[in-house]
Amino acid sequence: MNRKKVAILGATGAVGQEMLKAMVDKQLAIDIIQLASKNSEGRIIEYSEKKWIIQEATSDSFKGVDYVLGAVSNELAIKFAPIIKQNSAIFIDNSSAFRMQTEVPLIIPEINATDVQWHNGVIANPNCSTIITLMAVYGLHQVNPIKRMIVSTYQAVSGAGKQGIDELLNQEAGNKQSDLSVFDYPIFHNLIPKIGQSTETGSTSEELKMLNESIKILHHENLLVSCTCVRVPVIRCHSVSVNLEFQQPLSASEAKVILQKTSGVALLDDLNNNIYPMPFNTSEQDIIHVGRVRNDASIEDNKGLILWACGDQLRKGAATNAVQILELLLKTN
Amino acid sequence: MNRKKVAILGATGAVGQEMLKAMVDKQLAIDIIQLASKNSEGRIIEYSEKKWIIQEATSDSFKGVDYVLGAVSNELAIKFAPIIKQNSAIFIDNSSAFRMQTEVPLIIPEINATDVQWHNGVIANPNCSTIITLMAVYGLHQVNPIKRMIVSTYQAVSGAGKQGIDELLNQEAGNKQSDLSVFDYPIFHNLIPKIGQSTETGSTSEELKMLNESIKILHHENLLVSCTCVRVPVIRCHSVSVNLEFQQPLSASEAKVILQKTSGVALLDDLNNNIYPMPFNTSEQDIIHVGRVRNDASIEDNKGLILWACGDQLRKGAATNAVQILELLLKTN
Repeated sequence: MNRKKVAILGATGAVGQEMLKAMVDKQLAIDIIQLASKNSEGRIIEYSEKKWIIQEATSDSFKGVDYVLGAVSNELAIKFAPIIKQNSAIFIDNSSAFRMQTEVPLIIPEINATDVQWHNGVIANPNCSTIITLMAVYGLHQVNPIKRMIVSTYQAVSGAGKQGIDELLNQEAGNKQSDLSVFDYPIFHNLIPKIGQSTETGSTSEELKMLNESIKILHHENLLVSCTCVRVPVIRCHSVSVNLEFQQPLSASEAKVILQKTSGVALLDDLNNNIYPMPFNTSEQDIIHVGRVRNDASIEDNKGLILWACGDQLRKGAATNAVQILELLLKTN
Repeated sequence: MNRKKVAILGATGAVGQEMLKAMVDKQLAIDIIQLASKNSEGRIIEYSEKKWIIQEATSDSFKGVDYVLGAVSNELAIKFAPIIKQNSAIFIDNSSAFRMQTEVPLIIPEINATDVQWHNGVIANPNCSTIITLMAVYGLHQVNPIKRMIVSTYQAVSGAGKQGIDELLNQEAGNKQSDLSVFDYPIFHNLIPKIGQSTETGSTSEELKMLNESIKILHHENLLVSCTCVRVPVIRCHSVSVNLEFQQPLSASEAKVILQKTSGVALLDDLNNNIYPMPFNTSEQDIIHVGRVRNDASIEDNKGLILWACGDQLRKGAATNAVQILELLLKTN
């Protein structure tokens, strides 16, 4: 078996660095090359006693590469996608540029791994909040289809990359508000209820991702989704408050049994003993924590459920999910 | 007209101090006395070029007092209520001890001021998140009754008083986690999805307040409420993400017209120009900011609306609302 060659495109970013860690930690039988902008050329990245020299990403970077994990902007993803394709490499892209294209599968491996079969050179990695929310609910949905989902997010600054994290830390260190470059307002001691761009619907692009990507990943055309996305002064773990309406009755105790068996999810639910998901103890691992599971008495016939979930935005919300898609491809190719 | 005498019970706390400021700023024709625990006896409080000496709150403190604004724990409110009553003073209490008692009115002056008429010596000030949420929606409810309300809160540390604020600031200053005394976990860079005590329903006491107090204040027995309460690392402004279901259709543009005319509310809603409510610019004033108003496409027939609101927890969420109740009494007595 010849060793596959995997390039990280955007290796110096917050997600790119987590992609490297995830691949190394999983001990994949691959060779990794690390690509970034000219600025970072020659920089040395070390992890787990291994070293890589950053190369500039150019149109010549993809010769002999089998897979590319993309952790760059939509603009750069669109620029490099045709070059990657010309080199017969498969592009697993974390940007939102291709997610809603009909010929591009959008995959959370625990949910719709089989969609990997019909890709055409590009596979999209979903939005981070969408991954975390769907991971929390897909086990329930498989047993009892979700009719309507109302989500309010509490999104960490890592969703805006390394620069987002730095901007919060700078504000905490007392640096001037004039340093605003990533967020429109200070995020320290604040909440910003706009993530992404405004759209004609009144919702932001980020809020519409929760709707459109959920429908595509779950193959559930009739799913109703309402979403409000809010940036919070948390480093790297996204949280979601979710109200679910199901087709059939579902008690909280039944839901908890299902969640305990759901792959990729841990049920942390003991309110009396202060056990519930929090960014504090969900960061830097791959499992989505789900808790505060209770029936929603505002929906008739026991068809409503409330829950709260947290997940590391950089890992399962981005890098780990992309590396899991890579693993699916490595198994089948 | 003889000057009324008003005592603040709990004058050294975060809410007590805001009660003083609100009364002074409103230039009420009253004399204020400030009561607190023995620890604070003799301490001098200064505001707006005036001084008060803190007196210990004892059973002798209420002679000649006309009104008492309570900003103490349930335990102390229950202890002092009968003493206040014996002195023929009226107790406007910010604790939750009496809120749901049938003989105690629970009042947001903009919404149910007339309930002040049937008190029996005690009037309760509602929960802070409930005040902020109902202020944001009552104008709409008066035009088109709300059937169901789903709320996710983003609650500031001031909800746990001065000590809550100090605990966050200490954590930010790098002090040890061993200093946890108010919150069960660090709140810096974290979110805590439990406020209040756990109850048999799976919801917390804080979450049930949103249901029970809303029904009582709106006189709306059939109101359906679902609520998730979350503590966030913000100093003194609570925010809420709200999904509303109305009896009749209501467009977002109609809703905005109503909100613009609603007393106590400011509509901050221009997503393209980054105008939306935030703790950052809602703190230290009395108006509830409402924005992100949009139709909820997950509800049929245009009967659903989504919005986001922020308000200063210590002011309209607590002190100002109590002082407004006092003003109602001063006008009628």
